[in-house]
Amino acid sequence: MDTPQLALLLTGNELMSGDTVDSNSALIAAHLGDAGMEVGEKCTVGDEPDKLLASLDRLTRAYPAVVINGGLGPTRDDLTSEVVAKLAGVALVENPEALAHVESWCSRRRITPNPANLKQALVPQGSALIDNPRGSALGFALEVNGCLVLTTPGVPSELAAMMQELVEKLGVQLGGTSRHIKRLQTFGIGESSVEERVKEFGADWPDRVSLGFRAGMPQLELKLSVDSEQDLPEQRHAMAMLDAAFGDHILGEGDTRLAARLQDVLREQGKSMTTAESCTGGLIASMMTREPGSSHVFGTGFVTYANAAKQDQLGVPETTLETHGAVSEPVVVAMLRGALSRSGADIGVAVSGIAGPGGASEDKPQGTVWLAWGTSEDLRTHCAVVSGSRSLFQNVVAAAGLDLLRRHLLQLPPLPHYFSRQA
Amino acid sequence: MDTPQLALLLTGNELMSGDTVDSNSALIAAHLGDAGMEVGEKCTVGDEPDKLLASLDRLTRAYPAVVINGGLGPTRDDLTSEVVAKLAGVALVENPEALAHVESWCSRRRITPNPANLKQALVPQGSALIDNPRGSALGFALEVNGCLVLTTPGVPSELAAMMQELVEKLGVQLGGTSRHIKRLQTFGIGESSVEERVKEFGADWPDRVSLGFRAGMPQLELKLSVDSEQDLPEQRHAMAMLDAAFGDHILGEGDTRLAARLQDVLREQGKSMTTAESCTGGLIASMMTREPGSSHVFGTGFVTYANAAKQDQLGVPETTLETHGAVSEPVVVAMLRGALSRSGADIGVAVSGIAGPGGASEDKPQGTVWLAWGTSEDLRTHCAVVSGSRSLFQNVVAAAGLDLLRRHLLQLPPLPHYFSRQA
Repeated sequence: MDTPQLALLLTGNELMSGDTVDSNSALIAAHLGDAGMEVGEKCTVGDEPDKLLASLDRLTRAYPAVVINGGLGPTRDDLTSEVVAKLAGVALVENPEALAHVESWCSRRRITPNPANLKQALVPQGSALIDNPRGSALGFALEVNGCLVLTTPGVPSELAAMMQELVEKLGVQLGGTSRHIKRLQTFGIGESSVEERVKEFGADWPDRVSLGFRAGMPQLELKLSVDSEQDLPEQRHAMAMLDAAFGDHILGEGDTRLAARLQDVLREQGKSMTTAESCTGGLIASMMTREPGSSHVFGTGFVTYANAAKQDQLGVPETTLETHGAVSEPVVVAMLRGALSRSGADIGVAVSGIAGPGGASEDKPQGTVWLAWGTSEDLRTHCAVVSGSRSLFQNVVAAAGLDLLRRHLLQLPPLPHYFSRQA
Repeated sequence: MDTPQLALLLTGNELMSGDTVDSNSALIAAHLGDAGMEVGEKCTVGDEPDKLLASLDRLTRAYPAVVINGGLGPTRDDLTSEVVAKLAGVALVENPEALAHVESWCSRRRITPNPANLKQALVPQGSALIDNPRGSALGFALEVNGCLVLTTPGVPSELAAMMQELVEKLGVQLGGTSRHIKRLQTFGIGESSVEERVKEFGADWPDRVSLGFRAGMPQLELKLSVDSEQDLPEQRHAMAMLDAAFGDHILGEGDTRLAARLQDVLREQGKSMTTAESCTGGLIASMMTREPGSSHVFGTGFVTYANAAKQDQLGVPETTLETHGAVSEPVVVAMLRGALSRSGADIGVAVSGIAGPGGASEDKPQGTVWLAWGTSEDLRTHCAVVSGSRSLFQNVVAAAGLDLLRRHLLQLPPLPHYFSRQA
C-alpha cells in the first residue's frame, strides 16, 4: 500500500521575508511519518488573501487532506478562518465553545477580551474545533472540495501541544498505519558507515524493519520502524544486530544526549569527572552542565586558555610548555594530572589544540588537537586533526572528549574510527 | 512601484520527512529583501520528477523568476537539471566549463571523477552557469516559459557562497531597487520597547526610513532601510535618534555578537577578563572563546559548580557558603575576588544561581541568580529571577554576564531595565 499523502499550507509574512526559519513543517512531517503518513507538498505564502485562497483551492483539489499552519491569531493579518470559510462557501460564525475558550484564556491572564481576542471565536460554519491547550487560538477541521482541511496556530509550542489530536484526525481520514518506531542515538559513526554495515548483514536483516536517519550535530539518530505490532520481535532482532555491529557507538534510546549518557554512567559507577580545556574554552563543561543533575558528577572545570593559566591553575611546568608547545602530548597529560589532583575528581579530560584562524605552524596545522583522558593510573592520549571552521572544530572536539570518557568508563574500544579517519 | 516577486521551489525528501529544517529559503529571502525583491511563494516537494515538473511549470507561468534549491548533487535522486531540461524542451548536454569545474574539484580531493561526479557537468542546453566556489555542483540559469529559472545547491554553505551572483542575476531580470540597509545588533531590549520609543519620536522620525526586526537569541537585530541613496542622510539621522534613545543597548552594526563586542572593548582598553561560573557551568567562557582572537583578552576561567570547587579553586570561605548559601551576594563577591586574584585578570564576572529543575527553596525560587562583576576596586552585584527552562536560564544569565562587563568597561548604566523587569 502506498503511504497516504497530504499537503501543508504555511502562512505568514515572517516566513516569506526570511525573518523566521520554519521549523513547524518539520515537526508536523515527523509526527505524520511516525503515524504512517507523508507530506506530499508544502506551500508557503504571505498573509495575502488572494494567494491563500488560490493555494488552498489548488491543494484541496490535489490532496485528500490539507493542514494549514499560521494565520489564526487575533490581528487583521490573520486570515485563515476567513479564507477557509470563503472557499467552503459558508459564513464565519461565533462558536460558543471557542468563545468560552477565549474568555477563559483572557480571564486567566486577568484581561478583558477585546474585539481582537473575540475574533478568535469566529470559525467557518460547520467546523469541528481542535483544542489548543496552550494558547487562545483554537484550530478547526472542515471538509472543503471533498478534502479535509485542518487549521493550526503558528506558535511552535501551541502546535506541538495539538499534534496528537491532529494526527488522530488525519489518521481517520487517510488511514495511516500506526508505525512502531524505535529511535537510537549514536555518536562517532556516519550514515554511510551504518548503511554499509547493514548491507553486510544481507538476508539476515529482517526485511520488515526499515531504517531511517536524522543527522544531528554531533549525534546521528537511527530510526527502526515496523508497520505492525507483530513485527516488534523483528525490530528487537534488528536492534540486537546493530548493537553487535557497533554497539560502542550507541548512546541510548529516544533523545539521549552524549553528556546525559556520560552523567548516567558516572552516577552508576559513583564517580565524578573534571575538565581541563584550552581550545574548547569551556564548551565541554557547558555541555555537561546543560543537563539537569550534572552537579552530582561534575564539580570543577578548568578553562586554561592561556599558558599562564595552564601553569597557575593546573601546575603545568613552564619548561614543558616551552619545550613542547601548548599543543602537545606532555602538556595535555600535565593538564589532566593537574585537573585530577586539584579537583579530586575520579576521571577527567584535557584538550589543547589549534581552533584557528591563526596559531597554526608547519608541523601543527590548524585543527590539530591533543586530548588526554582517564584517571591518574590509567591515562590515554591521542592527537587528531579536525578540519572545518572554528565552531565545528570546537563542537567536534568537545563531543569527542565526552565520548572518550564514556568509552573509558565502560571499557569500550578507546580509539573509535572517527579519529583514525580524521587523523 | 510594487516590490517585484519571485517564487522558490525547494526539493529534497529530507525536507518532506521532517529530518531537515529548511534554513535555505530564509537565507535566500533575506538576501532578496536587501536587494528590494520579495519571495511571493515557496513550494517544497520531494525528489519526485512528476511533482517537480508540475510545480516548476506552474510557478514559471505565475512568476517572472523561479529559484530552485536542491537536487543538483551527484546521485540519482538529484533531478533538477533533468526536470528543467524537460520543461524547457531542450537536451541535457555536457558543459565544458562545468566539466572542468568538476574535474578540478575532484583533483583537489585526489579522487578520479566517477560517473556520478561527471553527471554534475550535464546542464540543459543554452543555460548560463552560476559559479559555486565551495562545491562541485554548479548552478545554472535558463529561460523557461518566459520565466528566468535559476538553480542552486542545497548545501547551505555552498548556497551562501553563490548568493551574490544569484541576487545580481535576479536584479537584472526583475529590476529590484537596491535598498540601503543598516543592521544594528542590540541586547537587553525587546521589539515592543523599541517600537514604543520610535512611536514617541512621532513626526520627528524620518518617514522614508523603515524599521524591521529579527529576533535572535539572545540578541535583537534592527534593520533600518531606505530605498535610495538620497535617503542615506535620513537613515543616519534615524540611527542617531535610536542611539540617543537606547544607545547603551546597541552592540554594533552588521553581525556583531555580544562576546565579540566585549572582546573589542577589552582590546581597546588593553584589559583582560576572567569568569567564575556556577550555574552557567562554563557557558560564559565558551561564548567568549567561540570568537576568534579571544586569547588576547581571556586567559583563565573557573567552572566551580560544587561548593568544594568554590572553596578550593576560588578561596570562597566555607563559613560564607554555610551562612549564606551558594546562591548569595557574599558568595558571588568572594568568587569574583578569588577569580580576579588567581587569574590576574583586570575585570571579571561571577554567577551563582538555581538553573533548576530542583534546588529551589521558599526564599530562593528556581531562576534566582546572583551576579557580581567588575574589578577588585569597583565591584557591583545584582540579584535577578530569570524564569524559563534550564537552557533559557543559562543562556540569558551568560549573555547578561557578558553585557554587564561591557557596560562596566564603557561606563554605561550598570543595571539596564531587562533586569528590573525580570526581578
